[in-house]
Amino acid sequence: MTTRQIVLAARPIGFPKDSDFRLEEVQLPAPGPGQFTVKNLYMSVDPYMRGRMNDTSSYSASFQINQVMAGGAIGEVVESSNPNFPKGVVVSSMCGWREHFISDGKMVTPVNPKLAPPSAFLGVLGIPGFTAWYGLKFIGEPKACETLVVSAAAGATGSLAGQLGKIWGCRVVGTAGSDEKCDYLKREMGFDAVINYKTAGNLDAALREACPKGIDVYFENVGGAMQEAVLRQINADARIVLCGLIDQYNDTAMRPGPNWAPLLINRAKVQGFIVSFHLDKLGAFFAEVGSLVAAGKVKYQETVVEGLAKAPRAFMGLLRGENAGKMVVKL
Amino acid sequence: MTTRQIVLAARPIGFPKDSDFRLEEVQLPAPGPGQFTVKNLYMSVDPYMRGRMNDTSSYSASFQINQVMAGGAIGEVVESSNPNFPKGVVVSSMCGWREHFISDGKMVTPVNPKLAPPSAFLGVLGIPGFTAWYGLKFIGEPKACETLVVSAAAGATGSLAGQLGKIWGCRVVGTAGSDEKCDYLKREMGFDAVINYKTAGNLDAALREACPKGIDVYFENVGGAMQEAVLRQINADARIVLCGLIDQYNDTAMRPGPNWAPLLINRAKVQGFIVSFHLDKLGAFFAEVGSLVAAGKVKYQETVVEGLAKAPRAFMGLLRGENAGKMVVKL
Repeated sequence: MTTRQIVLAARPIGFPKDSDFRLEEVQLPAPGPGQFTVKNLYMSVDPYMRGRMNDTSSYSASFQINQVMAGGAIGEVVESSNPNFPKGVVVSSMCGWREHFISDGKMVTPVNPKLAPPSAFLGVLGIPGFTAWYGLKFIGEPKACETLVVSAAAGATGSLAGQLGKIWGCRVVGTAGSDEKCDYLKREMGFDAVINYKTAGNLDAALREACPKGIDVYFENVGGAMQEAVLRQINADARIVLCGLIDQYNDTAMRPGPNWAPLLINRAKVQGFIVSFHLDKLGAFFAEVGSLVAAGKVKYQETVVEGLAKAPRAFMGLLRGENAGKMVVKL
Repeated sequence: MTTRQIVLAARPIGFPKDSDFRLEEVQLPAPGPGQFTVKNLYMSVDPYMRGRMNDTSSYSASFQINQVMAGGAIGEVVESSNPNFPKGVVVSSMCGWREHFISDGKMVTPVNPKLAPPSAFLGVLGIPGFTAWYGLKFIGEPKACETLVVSAAAGATGSLAGQLGKIWGCRVVGTAGSDEKCDYLKREMGFDAVINYKTAGNLDAALREACPKGIDVYFENVGGAMQEAVLRQINADARIVLCGLIDQYNDTAMRPGPNWAPLLINRAKVQGFIVSFHLDKLGAFFAEVGSLVAAGKVKYQETVVEGLAKAPRAFMGLLRGENAGKMVVKL
């Protein structure tokens, strides 16, 4: 059969552009013995993919020029000679950026359709949600009545981190880049206060008003000016969950970061983490957050873009903060 | 009786100068019931005192203008009506920057003269040593065969941190500001490699040569350029013991710090700590390090300046790195 995929055409310099991606038609053979064909229903675009487009290796391997890109996807088995993955099963994989793929069942996981619709397994019940849960629970270690600040709070990870903070008893403050996002966080997701960083003006004053008792836990997704402002208001024994730095992923040179004096004086902890090193906790995540989602106690938003050809634009939009909640591409 | 003390005459702007200090003669009454008089033998000058000279409160209270300064001291009871502190007992206190003081026994601790000479209780067996032991053991958590880098390695804290790293099985690399200090670290204290940051030229290249397997633990005493260079070579799961930032204590404005991307990518931990919040571990420290010192398995250097009047110069010399090992003032 004929299918389509997107390959890395060129390594972006700074912000990615259309010509860094190329849509290709390729021939897919029929599945061999023990194999099956998956038709992807949704694919994920995520901030970490920007790092994989660079030549410098990081915690996950670089994408290669003229090779198909990779990322989370949810698909349905459409043809199978593997009894463990019969036709109709819905699976999660890292084989995104393509419409079909052939698998022998390795690195492919069936999802539980009773918990949520398929696309949710790319967001609140996928790696972004797992990242929020793991980072906040095991690094942030929030206690009741503490103040939690979440940056990029309207994103897939941030919006779950904030809601979990509320469930665990914190005062939760979110930052986001539009009034619509901020309103949603406050009205629908129960955040105590929100800051639109694009219109707030003085971030120090905005944080002081939103966090009258200082900041105990910072769930860091962005870096830059927000990071510096938060550091100026951390409390003693503060914890900083270093999850992402989207504000600088397109930098062509390393910017300076914040002075460490507030970390020293306040005995604060900064801990970077990469959630793929903690997959042993995936069962505990589904047990806790899967139930919360199924019971409607945790909400999630999605921004859905239609068609593989639009995946590069969806990815670039994500880097510009054009999404509300999880950005997915419907295939 | 008449005694002498040093008061804070003015708050320094940038690097302290002579006129920020004033030597005073004061009258000391005879000790009342339950009280005793201590004649200080040695007083400590330490980098953290620079922060206490500022108006901004930090983890310890600001020194007040025209008030006697404070800091670690070792003294001998010379007159007593307190049976728990008879004449001749040697005590550790925070009543430095003066020749005598009267105490009721609170906040004053007898030292064990069998372990080491009195001045050692201001250095390797005092707060600087406790800081090295606590920070490396509980935050650095070094494992055998890992690479430990210690900045300001010839100082009272750094030199113990490095030697403990060796005892605990690490490759230990120290940085210091003179060839004499570096030679001593390598020859007498068993460091595997040393970097004279003033003459090394390219710090990245020097660290790469000294740390062929990258950096697993960084015991941070200085900040600045060394901090940035170290961050560029940390390994996955690195730990950064944020003990001091002496390079910036005299800054009049906050300098930028290092970009956090290496912390995120390497899942590194940075933990600031203030050892006075961990005094519950003091017994374990003396049990472990006291024995090592008494057995000659840990060495220590002292730079001794004579006379209370020279204490301000000793303190300023410390901030310029003129000491080898613990800087103390003999009274």
